Amino acid sequence: MNLLITGFEPFDSETVNSGYEAIKLLPDKILDYNIIKLELPVIFEDSIDILIKAIENFNPSIVLCIGQAGGQANIIPERVAINIDDARIPDNKGMQPVDVPIFKDGENAYFSKLPIKKIVENLKSENIPADISNSAGTYVCNHIMYGLLYFINKNKEYNSIIGGFIHVPYLETQVVNKPNTPSMTTEEICRALKISIETIIKEPVKNIDTKKKSYFFDFSV
Amino acid sequence: MNLLITGFEPFDSETVNSGYEAIKLLPDKILDYNIIKLELPVIFEDSIDILIKAIENFNPSIVLCIGQAGGQANIIPERVAINIDDARIPDNKGMQPVDVPIFKDGENAYFSKLPIKKIVENLKSENIPADISNSAGTYVCNHIMYGLLYFINKNKEYNSIIGGFIHVPYLETQVVNKPNTPSMTTEEICRALKISIETIIKEPVKNIDTKKKSYFFDFSV
Amino acid sequence: MNLLITGFEPFDSETVNSGYEAIKLLPDKILDYNIIKLELPVIFEDSIDILIKAIENFNPSIVLCIGQAGGQANIIPERVAINIDDARIPDNKGMQPVDVPIFKDGENAYFSKLPIKKIVENLKSENIPADISNSAGTYVCNHIMYGLLYFINKNKEYNSIIGGFIHVPYLETQVVNKPNTPSMTTEEICRALKISIETIIKEPVKNIDTKKKSYFFDFSV
Amino acid sequence: MNLLITGFEPFDSETVNSGYEAIKLLPDKILDYNIIKLELPVIFEDSIDILIKAIENFNPSIVLCIGQAGGQANIIPERVAINIDDARIPDNKGMQPVDVPIFKDGENAYFSKLPIKKIVENLKSENIPADISNSAGTYVCNHIMYGLLYFINKNKEYNSIIGGFIHVPYLETQVVNKPNTPSMTTEEICRALKISIETIIKEPVKNIDTKKKSYFFDFSV
Repeated sequence: MNLLITGFEPFDSETVNSGYEAIKLLPDKILDYNIIKLELPVIFEDSIDILIKAIENFNPSIVLCIGQAGGQANIIPERVAINIDDARIPDNKGMQPVDVPIFKDGENAYFSKLPIKKIVENLKSENIPADISNSAGTYVCNHIMYGLLYFINKNKEYNSIIGGFIHVPYLETQVVNKPNTPSMTTEEICRALKISIETIIKEPVKNIDTKKKSYFFDFSV
Repeated sequence: MNLLITGFEPFDSETVNSGYEAIKLLPDKILDYNIIKLELPVIFEDSIDILIKAIENFNPSIVLCIGQAGGQANIIPERVAINIDDARIPDNKGMQPVDVPIFKDGENAYFSKLPIKKIVENLKSENIPADISNSAGTYVCNHIMYGLLYFINKNKEYNSIIGGFIHVPYLETQVVNKPNTPSMTTEEICRALKISIETIIKEPVKNIDTKKKSYFFDFSV
Repeated sequence: MNLLITGFEPFDSETVNSGYEAIKLLPDKILDYNIIKLELPVIFEDSIDILIKAIENFNPSIVLCIGQAGGQANIIPERVAINIDDARIPDNKGMQPVDVPIFKDGENAYFSKLPIKKIVENLKSENIPADISNSAGTYVCNHIMYGLLYFINKNKEYNSIIGGFIHVPYLETQVVNKPNTPSMTTEEICRALKISIETIIKEPVKNIDTKKKSYFFDFSV
Repeated sequence: MNLLITGFEPFDSETVNSGYEAIKLLPDKILDYNIIKLELPVIFEDSIDILIKAIENFNPSIVLCIGQAGGQANIIPERVAINIDDARIPDNKGMQPVDVPIFKDGENAYFSKLPIKKIVENLKSENIPADISNSAGTYVCNHIMYGLLYFINKNKEYNSIIGGFIHVPYLETQVVNKPNTPSMTTEEICRALKISIETIIKEPVKNIDTKKKSYFFDFSV
């Protein structure tokens, strides 16, 4: 079985992207899953198309998108993606959409299909600082998370994909010239990704309402 | 015409709530609007019902909910409310819902109907620090914002209400015993609310898709 | 009797200096003290000379230097000045001393002669966030505080001067385009300065070892 | 030749101290120096005596004291220690001195004898975030740094000791239940200490005025 993991190319005058640097260190196989690595451009227009082509090509049962959250100290599974692009800085193609919906026929938001609480719990039990975030922003990170979940929810044949997004801190190389900014080593982020992936693979999938509800909602009540 | 503005009672061991303290200083009339002030309990179960009863009673054309965002330095109009309660601390009734949807038939999220960008612009031009937030959290603040927008969107007779949520910093009284924490004077928060209200009243309402789209989406493209 | 209060001109691409803006709002008399206001250049080379000339001219019994601590939320009386200039950015004359002692025959450090704990206590009791700082940095703020205390300690005829330094936050105008940065209104900083001045005037001076010990040391033990 | 490195026991309800955990991983020899490891109590009254006994016993040519700076993201060589104890929380023996000089016949402050700028430079070139600090606080960390430098400066036979203090961040284990707090792995802090030690050993000692001037002062001017 295949697990597709994506990182982004560097952006905002950085020369590396912490997420993709850590992805490069992942093994090619975790448990019984082939780990397929994809570097996405930090470009609103192209990123979703490239992601979807990779999904159609590799038919993964899990899609995990990784992004860099400069200034954060924790590994941060994102809870929700919202239907809006609102960029403070231009993307790598020079585009800067302001208050534009990502898909006009999309829901206002989609919840992650990852077991985000269990990921946080397992990371902490392995001494990696982690927390849930309730906003992936309105830049290309939220854009790709929304695009992924829109695609999964809109297409019956891809409904069973477990998809979501995790933000990771800067690498040490990225903060040595910034004032008092948290960072993690590439090895430690890689360890966090491995634990996250193992959690996603092992966690039994239950209560998923693929249309619009979160993985964690309990509808039996 | 009526404008209903709500604040919360104190919570989390505070003895005041910065939002409601500032609301108390507002005049009873701004431009041609009667300012109706309501203090809501920090209780998941009751807060939405009380808000809706006030809406039904006063029939306001604008509903502005205010909350306290401890630790933030800015006046923060919220962009979006999400359909989930996930409390880190118990509410004032001792309830602590975890990963529970607010309304099972609600959208995953609703966008604010306030002119949030214009409010930020006007506050800054009056030298009040302000910024958009993309998450109102998952506590009672998000709960009431979601409840308000769910109500507006679900009920045809209330579809034209301009509703949304603004977070404000701690008062100085609340931070004197906290380490290096931003605050604002009650008078300054009150001035910010007045500017926000005047902005909402004056800004022409356009392009509202009351079902699920943001105030700012441009559907003419 | 005279109280000399100094602020700095703007620096580091700011167009105002929060400290001096607040000083300008102070009355000309507080209790029985004439308040003499002086704007100092942010220039290592000139600032101490200008300060000393003003002291010689006005013969104040209290000298209070004020500086801007961008990013801090509190009013911060400084505890100590150290004998070193180490500038991260050039001063307003383009000079950037690195690891240079201020006075070769000076002590390594001088403690403030202000009642810093009492100032913090009185500010807090008036709901103004305040705290002691143990470092005035190594830029022109520390430079002027060190120069003042060196002068007081080295010159018998000025030994009785109560001198020290207080850092104040940015004004709101300075943070509206900075991300989530604490600020205070000019009026509130001015109120804080007034309370600080009243505290210095009223507090009985005791236990001062004018050579090198802090105001607060109890040598009776 | 001997290098004495000290860390502290845990304090303030922590169960480990990041500094000493990293020290434990250091090899017993770095270049031609024997690394002698000492765990100090977080007790104002006892800590300096224990340190001095170890110095008298092992006759080290380098003494490096390490402390934990919770909340900081960087490795932080301290520039200066000041002659005052002013504790916000009781030490591990329940003592909480307030505004008490450490040694009545001591200088107001002593500058570190470590090549602090070179340490920061070398750490950064090895991709470890680092910065100079101008205050070691007024708790047991500053107390031990001051005690060490007082001892070196006051005793002719120990004048040649290269001594100073470095603060290090929390370990990951210490922040998993704190909100968004920077940390470093024990291995990474250990790597930082090794680089710091190699820098101290290799850096030619020059321009030291053992009485009261910093390592970095250039007196040839």
